[in-house]
Amino acid sequence: MIETEMRQDPLRQSWTVFSASRTAKPPLLSRNRGHAPEQTQVSPFAAGNESLTPSALHVAKSGDHWQVRVVPNRAPVLRIEGQPDISADGFYDRMDGIGAHEIIIETPGSESLESLPLHAIGEVINAWKLRILDLARDDRMRSFFIVKNSGETAGAGIAHSISQLIAMAVVPTVLRQKLTIARDFFECKKRSIFEDILRDEVRVAKRLVYENNGFAVFCPYASRSPFELAVYPKRQCPDFHGISDQENVQLADALKTALLKLDRALDTPPYNLALFTAPTRTARRDHWNTIEHDFRWHIEILPRLTLIAGFETGTGFYINPTPPEDAAKYLREIPV
Amino acid sequence: MIETEMRQDPLRQSWTVFSASRTAKPPLLSRNRGHAPEQTQVSPFAAGNESLTPSALHVAKSGDHWQVRVVPNRAPVLRIEGQPDISADGFYDRMDGIGAHEIIIETPGSESLESLPLHAIGEVINAWKLRILDLARDDRMRSFFIVKNSGETAGAGIAHSISQLIAMAVVPTVLRQKLTIARDFFECKKRSIFEDILRDEVRVAKRLVYENNGFAVFCPYASRSPFELAVYPKRQCPDFHGISDQENVQLADALKTALLKLDRALDTPPYNLALFTAPTRTARRDHWNTIEHDFRWHIEILPRLTLIAGFETGTGFYINPTPPEDAAKYLREIPV
Repeated sequence: MIETEMRQDPLRQSWTVFSASRTAKPPLLSRNRGHAPEQTQVSPFAAGNESLTPSALHVAKSGDHWQVRVVPNRAPVLRIEGQPDISADGFYDRMDGIGAHEIIIETPGSESLESLPLHAIGEVINAWKLRILDLARDDRMRSFFIVKNSGETAGAGIAHSISQLIAMAVVPTVLRQKLTIARDFFECKKRSIFEDILRDEVRVAKRLVYENNGFAVFCPYASRSPFELAVYPKRQCPDFHGISDQENVQLADALKTALLKLDRALDTPPYNLALFTAPTRTARRDHWNTIEHDFRWHIEILPRLTLIAGFETGTGFYINPTPPEDAAKYLREIPV
Repeated sequence: MIETEMRQDPLRQSWTVFSASRTAKPPLLSRNRGHAPEQTQVSPFAAGNESLTPSALHVAKSGDHWQVRVVPNRAPVLRIEGQPDISADGFYDRMDGIGAHEIIIETPGSESLESLPLHAIGEVINAWKLRILDLARDDRMRSFFIVKNSGETAGAGIAHSISQLIAMAVVPTVLRQKLTIARDFFECKKRSIFEDILRDEVRVAKRLVYENNGFAVFCPYASRSPFELAVYPKRQCPDFHGISDQENVQLADALKTALLKLDRALDTPPYNLALFTAPTRTARRDHWNTIEHDFRWHIEILPRLTLIAGFETGTGFYINPTPPEDAAKYLREIPV
């Protein structure tokens, strides 16, 4: 096996990334994945410790100091070397684990994302956009994924507030399914499923948590966990990197409000934030040619309040004790 | 919302079960799902405490004492009341959360499943079979799922060794996908994908951990976690409840060996064991009419050594630092 390899499960058609170099220790007995750099006494991401990280790929300054820095992940899930071709391995399918894995350091200090001022959150959103635009110049890349793990049980390996950008040579299973469902819905109804969901949520309003001119925040109808949140842009656009300056300010406001409400309602819960954006033009040419009309970039925030046990992994069902209508009502009433 | 309701995610087509009654406490701040009964000083499942559980649905005796008892779950995910019809809820789809949820008490004592003698493990396997046969008489049921959560981080709410049987009025997402892939493979090649995988694993043998005349235990090619195991029967049969008396003994041996090796290799790791079996005849008539040839019941054992973080839930990818060839070699050498 080469250093980083992807293998497909023949019965699920999902991919596993084998990334042997990600554990310096023998992997046999390690119980931590170490997705983010190891916990140390000193945050390698704090101001003054820039020499502890690789050189920055992007820096947003605020006066003499940096406000946001983007660096390559020292222990990347995927690597930039290799070819994006699927090949046979006996009965099975494999490919090189190529891609890019970057860390967005959201602040030089120890604050959480939601406690930053709006313009600083805007710089984080802008860093996501600029890094995607840069990585999209590599023709081998097919899709991008932005994720933020907050809290140890959500997978954060370090307390410093960061997010991660992963560029991939494939379109991952979850995004592929959303694209296909959005396309099939459009072919049937000539409308975007995202627009239908958004209109219904804003009109009925019982699951709505917050809205401004650019975005709506709501608890999804089939929320997978208590207090799950979705953040949908009101303007149809498949690509997150198509976000305007005005939308940047509006998204900063929506994210700050949503995360502050979650933080106050649930006493700083662990959560995963995921940003879904359309694949690159090369990837969508063949399969998703109505994508400009049918798919819309969006954000999901999943608090990790319940365990994922054997029933969930074995069936694909989720179990949630809290109806989204109750969660939304509670969150609406939290002052921020 | 009624007491137990299932709602479909329009962009994932997966279902969430809203089971409000499962938390007596207000659900807002509860961080435990309480999938199994609450932890108590006294195991409600131990010999002598039979009055703490509902009446048994099945009992296997050993002399004057019981060896295995099956009882209804006091806090079921799904309930027996309701109709299995999908209805509209505005833009969305919902149905009553109907089904059955039973607990198989695997021992009157405090032993783990794998430390029981072979005949006692055989009684557990037999209890799974007899309960499925009984529940299959309810025409509303479409599929059955057996799961065992071992260890707190794998979702076990109690230390006593139990497994759970869930009967559902739908075919869950994960099983549906496996059925569809097996059917498409059969239409293309006129062979079972399970037979192809099994032959390849036994022939190449580098991921094989154990085999006897009835079963093979191996680390899957695209293992989702270090030391994941699959247990495949050598005889083509879609239904677990079609297991013969001889296969019962062979499966008890394969399971005991696999779980003892895992226990010794990884110092009693938390794990989820899932048993996949074909849906009922009513459910398969329409969609899977070659099922006798293409789908095979099987077991997956997933050690919970790595966190499921935002990358995994957002992409459907898994990250695994341990190649299955290394895990299998290590497990083969563990004496049991």
